[in-house]
Amino acid sequence: MAKNNFVKNNFSEKYRVEEGNKFQLKDWETSSGEKIDEDEAEDQLKEIVEQISDLQNILYADNKWSLLLIFQAMDAAGKDSTIKNILSGVNPQGCEVYAFGRPSVEELGHDFLWRTTKCLPQRGNIGVFNRSYYEETLVARVHPELLKAQCLPNNLVTENIWEERFEDICAFEKHMARSGTKVLKFFLHLSPEEQKARFLERIDNPKKNWKFDKNDLYERTFWKRYMHAYEETIQHTACKHAPWYVIPADNKAYARLAVADAVLSTLKDLDLKYPSLSDEIIVSLKSFKGILDKEEQDIYKI
Amino acid sequence: MAKNNFVKNNFSEKYRVEEGNKFQLKDWETSSGEKIDEDEAEDQLKEIVEQISDLQNILYADNKWSLLLIFQAMDAAGKDSTIKNILSGVNPQGCEVYAFGRPSVEELGHDFLWRTTKCLPQRGNIGVFNRSYYEETLVARVHPELLKAQCLPNNLVTENIWEERFEDICAFEKHMARSGTKVLKFFLHLSPEEQKARFLERIDNPKKNWKFDKNDLYERTFWKRYMHAYEETIQHTACKHAPWYVIPADNKAYARLAVADAVLSTLKDLDLKYPSLSDEIIVSLKSFKGILDKEEQDIYKI
Repeated sequence: MAKNNFVKNNFSEKYRVEEGNKFQLKDWETSSGEKIDEDEAEDQLKEIVEQISDLQNILYADNKWSLLLIFQAMDAAGKDSTIKNILSGVNPQGCEVYAFGRPSVEELGHDFLWRTTKCLPQRGNIGVFNRSYYEETLVARVHPELLKAQCLPNNLVTENIWEERFEDICAFEKHMARSGTKVLKFFLHLSPEEQKARFLERIDNPKKNWKFDKNDLYERTFWKRYMHAYEETIQHTACKHAPWYVIPADNKAYARLAVADAVLSTLKDLDLKYPSLSDEIIVSLKSFKGILDKEEQDIYKI
Repeated sequence: MAKNNFVKNNFSEKYRVEEGNKFQLKDWETSSGEKIDEDEAEDQLKEIVEQISDLQNILYADNKWSLLLIFQAMDAAGKDSTIKNILSGVNPQGCEVYAFGRPSVEELGHDFLWRTTKCLPQRGNIGVFNRSYYEETLVARVHPELLKAQCLPNNLVTENIWEERFEDICAFEKHMARSGTKVLKFFLHLSPEEQKARFLERIDNPKKNWKFDKNDLYERTFWKRYMHAYEETIQHTACKHAPWYVIPADNKAYARLAVADAVLSTLKDLDLKYPSLSDEIIVSLKSFKGILDKEEQDIYKI
C-alpha cells in the first residue's frame, strides 16, 4: 500500500486560490501536516513528471495552447530545485525557463511588464518564470527605493500606484488567457523557522556555501512586510483564469509533488490530442507512399 | 504675411478624437479644405521639426517620459514619407522606428500584442510604429484567414473576439500611460480617388515603380470593409490618454504639418526641463573644478 496516499489526481486543488478577495494568508499552512515517505515521494514525482512529459509532447504538436508557470517565494523556499525536479524530464525544445534578477538599465527604462513579456512562452510551449513581474508588487513594494529607480514621472506615482499595478497585471493575465496561455502562479509558502534552518545548512555545508548570500539575511528582516505584500498580491490577482497556488513548502518533497500535480492537472484539463490530418491528406497519404516506392535511387546514391 | 495661416500652435487639435463612442468616420474629411502653399509649408514644417528636435533633447536628458507615435493608414496614404519628414531632424539616438509587416511564425506563436511590445520605446525616447498592433483589428478583421493563422484554441475564438481585443488594447494603453508613455495614434485618412492617383503615379513614374505592389490593388477592393474596421477601431480605442488623430491625408504637405504639430504640442504639454543637479552636487561642482585645475599633467601626457 502506498505510504504517501495523499497523492491523488489533482490533490493540489486544495492549494488553489481562484477568488482573491477572500484570501487571508494566516489561514494557510507552511506544512502539509502529512507524513511523507521521501523515497516513495521521489518515485511518485517521477511518475507525474513522465505524464507531464507525455502531455507536453502533445501540447507541442497541437501548437495551440501554452502554459506559463510563475514561481514566487522567499529565499531558500525551493524555487530553483522545484523547477529542476519537475521539468528535468521534459523535452527542453518546448520548454523555456527564465529567471528574473535585478533589472537592467534597459529594463528599468520600460514599463514593469516589459522584460517578462519578451520571454512569454510560444504557442505549444511550457514557459517558466523564476520570479516574474510579481516582483513589482512584492520586492518593489517592500523596498520603495526600487520604485524610485524606475524614474517614473513624479505625477504618475500616486497613492493609487499599487492598485493600478494590480489592475494592469489582471488585465494582462486576462489578455494572456484569451490568447491561449494558461497561467499558474505558485507561492512556495515557507516558515521563517525553516528558512533559518536552510540558511544555516548553506553556511555549514561546504557544498551549499555557494548558495549563501549575506543579503538574504537582510531581506529576512523584512519578513512581515513581505508576507503582507504576498497577501495583498494574491488578494488582488487570484482569479479563475490565473489562479495562485499557495504551496506548503517546509517539506521540499511535498512541495514538488503538489506543484507537479497542479501542472499535470492543468495539462489534463486541456484535453490535448495529436492533430489529425484532414481527409484529403489522409487519402493522399497512399500516393505519397507510392512516390517513395517508385523513386529512382539516383536522387540520393552518391 | 503667412499664406498658410492655418498653422497655429496646436491646430491639429481639431483632428484629435478622445471620445471614441461619438466617432463616425463619415463626419471626417480626407481634405483639409485649406489652400496650401507648398513652399511655405516646407519652411513651416522645418520650423516645427526644429522645435521637436530641441524638446526631444530634453525628453532624452530628463529620462522620465517616452512618446509612442502609431501610424495606420491605407496603402499610399503617406506613412513612410510622413515619418521620414518629421523625424529626419531628430537625433536618432533617442528615436526608435519599427515597421510591422507580415508576422513571422515566432510572432504568430504569441499573443497579438507581443511583437510590438518588444519594440516599445525606452524612457526618454520617441518610438514610432509604422503599422502596429492595430493591424489586428484592421487587417485581421477584414481578412479572417489571418486570424486563423494565429492557431488560437478553437474555444477562444468566439463572436466576442473583437470586443475582447479592443478591451485588451485599451488596458494595455492605460498601462503604458501609467508607465509614462504618451501614445498618439495617427490615422492618415485618404480618399480612394487620391489613392488611385498615387498608384497610377507609381506605375507611370520609373523612380516610383519600386513602391508599386500589385497586392495593393487587391487590398483596395476591400475599401469599404477597411473603413468600417477603422471606424470601429477608433470608436473603441480613442480616449484621453491615447487619442486618435484622424488626419486629412489627400494633401501630403498638410498631413505632415498636422502630424508634426500634434507631436510638438504633446511634447510642449509635458513641460520638460533639463534635470537640475541637487544642491549638494552644485556646491561640490567648485571642488570638482579644483580637482581639474590641480591635476598633474602626467596623468595624460604620453
